[in-house]
Amino acid sequence: MPVGTLATVKGVTASQLRDTGAQMVLANTYHLHLQPGEQIVADAGGLHRFMGWDGPLLTDSGGFQVFSLGDINRIDDHGVVFRSPRDGARITLTPERAMEIQMALGADVAMAFDQCPPYPASEADVAAACRRTHAWLERCISTHRTTDQALFGIVQGGCFPRLRAESARVVASMNLPGIAVGGVSVGEPVEEMHRIVRQVGPLLPAAKPHYLMGVGTLRELAVAVANGFDLFDCVLPTRLGRHGAALVGGERWNLRNARFRHDHTPLDAGCPCAACSRHTRAYLHHLIRSEEMLGKILLSLHNLTQLIRFTTAMGQAIREGCFAEDFAPWEPGSEAGHTW
Amino acid sequence: MPVGTLATVKGVTASQLRDTGAQMVLANTYHLHLQPGEQIVADAGGLHRFMGWDGPLLTDSGGFQVFSLGDINRIDDHGVVFRSPRDGARITLTPERAMEIQMALGADVAMAFDQCPPYPASEADVAAACRRTHAWLERCISTHRTTDQALFGIVQGGCFPRLRAESARVVASMNLPGIAVGGVSVGEPVEEMHRIVRQVGPLLPAAKPHYLMGVGTLRELAVAVANGFDLFDCVLPTRLGRHGAALVGGERWNLRNARFRHDHTPLDAGCPCAACSRHTRAYLHHLIRSEEMLGKILLSLHNLTQLIRFTTAMGQAIREGCFAEDFAPWEPGSEAGHTW
Repeated sequence: MPVGTLATVKGVTASQLRDTGAQMVLANTYHLHLQPGEQIVADAGGLHRFMGWDGPLLTDSGGFQVFSLGDINRIDDHGVVFRSPRDGARITLTPERAMEIQMALGADVAMAFDQCPPYPASEADVAAACRRTHAWLERCISTHRTTDQALFGIVQGGCFPRLRAESARVVASMNLPGIAVGGVSVGEPVEEMHRIVRQVGPLLPAAKPHYLMGVGTLRELAVAVANGFDLFDCVLPTRLGRHGAALVGGERWNLRNARFRHDHTPLDAGCPCAACSRHTRAYLHHLIRSEEMLGKILLSLHNLTQLIRFTTAMGQAIREGCFAEDFAPWEPGSEAGHTW
Repeated sequence: MPVGTLATVKGVTASQLRDTGAQMVLANTYHLHLQPGEQIVADAGGLHRFMGWDGPLLTDSGGFQVFSLGDINRIDDHGVVFRSPRDGARITLTPERAMEIQMALGADVAMAFDQCPPYPASEADVAAACRRTHAWLERCISTHRTTDQALFGIVQGGCFPRLRAESARVVASMNLPGIAVGGVSVGEPVEEMHRIVRQVGPLLPAAKPHYLMGVGTLRELAVAVANGFDLFDCVLPTRLGRHGAALVGGERWNLRNARFRHDHTPLDAGCPCAACSRHTRAYLHHLIRSEEMLGKILLSLHNLTQLIRFTTAMGQAIREGCFAEDFAPWEPGSEAGHTW
């Protein structure tokens, strides 16, 4: 899922987004609650209409943003009180409120309101966050009374296998239509993330979609798919694009680099995106050096296309029975002769 | 002609630019000489290939930018010496150099290197600039030895009818494939501009394309077309778009304005652009308020589409014999029942 924080994948129109191959898009409850507010989105006919995207949409619950971005005044079992970064107003977010906002936004999938502990955190702190996350999940389920939106629960537990196993058991027992793993990609070493993915993936109900939140890069996507995950979101493709970096063959290239100045070849000859099919590295270098908006746009389109092509190729390999050979464990030199 | 200063119409991809209905695009010799340099564009196979635009292209000569943007060290009959705003390097631009650069860039139309006096300027200063512009034009013609690029001369003369008439006579006598009127839209009152357009338009050779440089707005376009002008360029559509303003029905709307916050109607229901066909004023307001790139992009696309639709409608009205009735003199309430 490309990330459309404020009901827009940054710099990308709806039809360009469709052209990247993206199927599902994520938007942020926290940001949309602050601006423009869920009532305006609801009045527009819901998030799909508001942002002009007719494919599936998922909204996160705001929990991650409150804990990572917010100026928190108070947090207790009731919920979280924080100051709006826009105008300093006191805002209270509770499981009930997070559900009401997401029902008003009207995405296809809503996420439970959870407490995502920072990394590192003590086992006691993570255990407390888990207990609160599970209690909040029950309140989310009680509040989330709508038939045209799925609610996914979120497994927490930090880097503690015992807590992860317990959280997976509790969340799976709620029998929701989908299940997510949060508290990854929050600063832990990548080996820790792989360990969590390998441990928790197999504990989740096999018939439900599994969503690994905030991931990621090609290697992490492949490791997660190998462990049963289906859904991902990451700001990396557009964030890198805005900073002049391109994902090419598993590497990150800084297009500002002088080595591209005279390079009149496509960024990636095998890529069908607007940047690769129509332009050269020298042109992209020129745009990025000139701080031109089009440079950020074209690199964002390319990076989104790369990640979507990679996940599409994994799906095809799974259907053709050659995923383990081509992608898992995914290494830079591994063969992937399908659509990738 | 949408303005693609640095070989990009700001924020707009080549295919989006095509979708606005634009036929011809302008790029800036001055800017491209500084970055990336004409040699890189030539190595890329020319400006069309470099920027991925397969329609007609025109490059201005750099004269206007040198005189309006440059930190000028010296100006004499030989040419202009100025400091590069990038690195402070001394750069000399002469008629010969401006032709060499434009031939290397390889647009379909190159513009003569002229001296555009500021507004206001004394009659003596404008007369001197005219004499120099005419002498430089002869040197441009001598240097511009290529068969796959047209060279247009530029009429100067400020607000002095005698000088305008003399300049039109001299430039027309060169028998070039097109002729431009410069030194308008440089700060003079709009009535002055109309007076120049009305005076000079009829003095130009009827069979050649007439290009009014740096214009403009709907009213100025209609007045100019009524006086025989065919080509225009203006940064206004994209500059307004980047600043959150939309051209709607001859007015400029600031989408940041709170009156659009709850307005769930299209910007302009009759407009086929990506902003109007897929989004609402409330969404555009949200994007502009949030400083989202997509807001600038969508408004730029809309504004470009508006101006191109307007010029297309004028062309259709001329072919149908009702231009004078519908467009000239163009007033906000005038009827334009064609494609506009």
